[in-house]
Amino acid sequence: MSRFAYVNGRYVRHRDAMVHIEDRGYQFADGVYEVVVVDHGVLVDGEAHLDRLERSLSALRIVQPMSRAAIKLVMGEVLRRNRVRDGLLYLQVTRGVARREHKFPATIKPAMVMTARSAALWSQERFSRGVSVISLEDIRWGRADIKSVSLIANVLAKQAAAEADANEAWLVGPDGHVTEGASSNAWIVTAAGDLVTRGTGSKILGGVTRATLLRLAAHLGVRAVERAFTIEEALKAREAFLSSSSSAVLPVLSIDGACVGNGRPGPVARRLYDAYGEYVGRLSGSG
Amino acid sequence: MSRFAYVNGRYVRHRDAMVHIEDRGYQFADGVYEVVVVDHGVLVDGEAHLDRLERSLSALRIVQPMSRAAIKLVMGEVLRRNRVRDGLLYLQVTRGVARREHKFPATIKPAMVMTARSAALWSQERFSRGVSVISLEDIRWGRADIKSVSLIANVLAKQAAAEADANEAWLVGPDGHVTEGASSNAWIVTAAGDLVTRGTGSKILGGVTRATLLRLAAHLGVRAVERAFTIEEALKAREAFLSSSSSAVLPVLSIDGACVGNGRPGPVARRLYDAYGEYVGRLSGSG
Repeated sequence: MSRFAYVNGRYVRHRDAMVHIEDRGYQFADGVYEVVVVDHGVLVDGEAHLDRLERSLSALRIVQPMSRAAIKLVMGEVLRRNRVRDGLLYLQVTRGVARREHKFPATIKPAMVMTARSAALWSQERFSRGVSVISLEDIRWGRADIKSVSLIANVLAKQAAAEADANEAWLVGPDGHVTEGASSNAWIVTAAGDLVTRGTGSKILGGVTRATLLRLAAHLGVRAVERAFTIEEALKAREAFLSSSSSAVLPVLSIDGACVGNGRPGPVARRLYDAYGEYVGRLSGSG
Repeated sequence: MSRFAYVNGRYVRHRDAMVHIEDRGYQFADGVYEVVVVDHGVLVDGEAHLDRLERSLSALRIVQPMSRAAIKLVMGEVLRRNRVRDGLLYLQVTRGVARREHKFPATIKPAMVMTARSAALWSQERFSRGVSVISLEDIRWGRADIKSVSLIANVLAKQAAAEADANEAWLVGPDGHVTEGASSNAWIVTAAGDLVTRGTGSKILGGVTRATLLRLAAHLGVRAVERAFTIEEALKAREAFLSSSSSAVLPVLSIDGACVGNGRPGPVARRLYDAYGEYVGRLSGSG
């Protein structure tokens, strides 16, 4: 099937989806993005993703490319043209095209690109299999809270994980604490049964799924604490897991080759995974 | 005059110079670049720039897009088609186009883009005017030695400088030492007459002009020391200046609004500027 992309006002065939070489996204990583899960045709936590997009744009002082209502219309059209009922929508906004110079151009029109594709994402089977992670020094830039396309450090971390037969890298800051994964948030369940994940701030991206899971944990009566933890603490934890829009909840069964807990998915991760699945089912009317 | 760009094997009009939205340079800042000065038709320190390009590519494990000889042919053709005798050549290599996923794609062909434009760069008049800099926290990623397009932190620093009526931001690491400028290397001349600039390593880009200036300083009998310095030390220095390919040597007359030395270009900067001009003149046969 031909795929289609939205590129700066036009719907084009995916293979013809091009941007200018002086788009500042290409030359300066001067742009932001969102990846939104589509479930039964519904954008999961779509408003929260658009809230975060606006925050990222505002942090970089990139002008909003169009109204939120207009972005939603384009999102719907991209899903429709690509016949995506279950999958991922990708949206990127950059500062726009200008002759290369670091500082912001005086007048510039932001650029917006959107694609969508069908994909099978989380599943009971993937949950049960769990994942391995490695720990790595966090060498990303200092504003991980901005969802910028400045992802080269994340790329290198994911590649290092893949080469170690792991699925994710947990990044460790100079203070010895885990910030987050290269494309996910990091969680543990302590011996006391507390659910722990790092608090928001400049060092992590405020995950949309992270926020939803914190709300669901409260509903389930699971005590959640937002604080930093170390790899050593994670290795002694009862459970560890990661969260992201495209992975939902994935148990972390080993870190740097050492087992976490009993090496199997834990009950808190299971309850959150189930609750998240029900939540998404309610959103999409499929539950 | 129409301008031309080289884009992945073709010479196209500049306005038609496009790359795919899934070029990893656009989605992941997964690419590197060089800016080379052209003087009287000659690429200044061209071999050193190509050496550094190869190092950057190798550090990110991006395949060399073509042989060095072939790149030089393209460079010459881009200059010829754009009739650039004095100006700048821009070259960018990215990992290439692939469906979006962080880790390196299994098979991928690197992408190469090149542009050139005429420009008047350094001059006696610009040298004499000097520049102001501000100091800012260095929030770039941990591998400033790789000339990657992951430049959003540099963009924000340059913008902050411009808004403070300054020309450059000197970035200060967590240890309180200056790393370098957002697009230049930082230098001071101490009360004892020592020329000081930070040693290479992961925290700074090994500037091509920086290396040339160190060689010229040795020829001039100016004692050079590669070590870190603080903003406080720079404010007490006899002279301060910055270097880059496009700026050569530019005296820094104030930092955060406070004068450096007597607030005028200093004699060591002047000697290095003159020596650099003579060096470039010898290279291009115009001296």
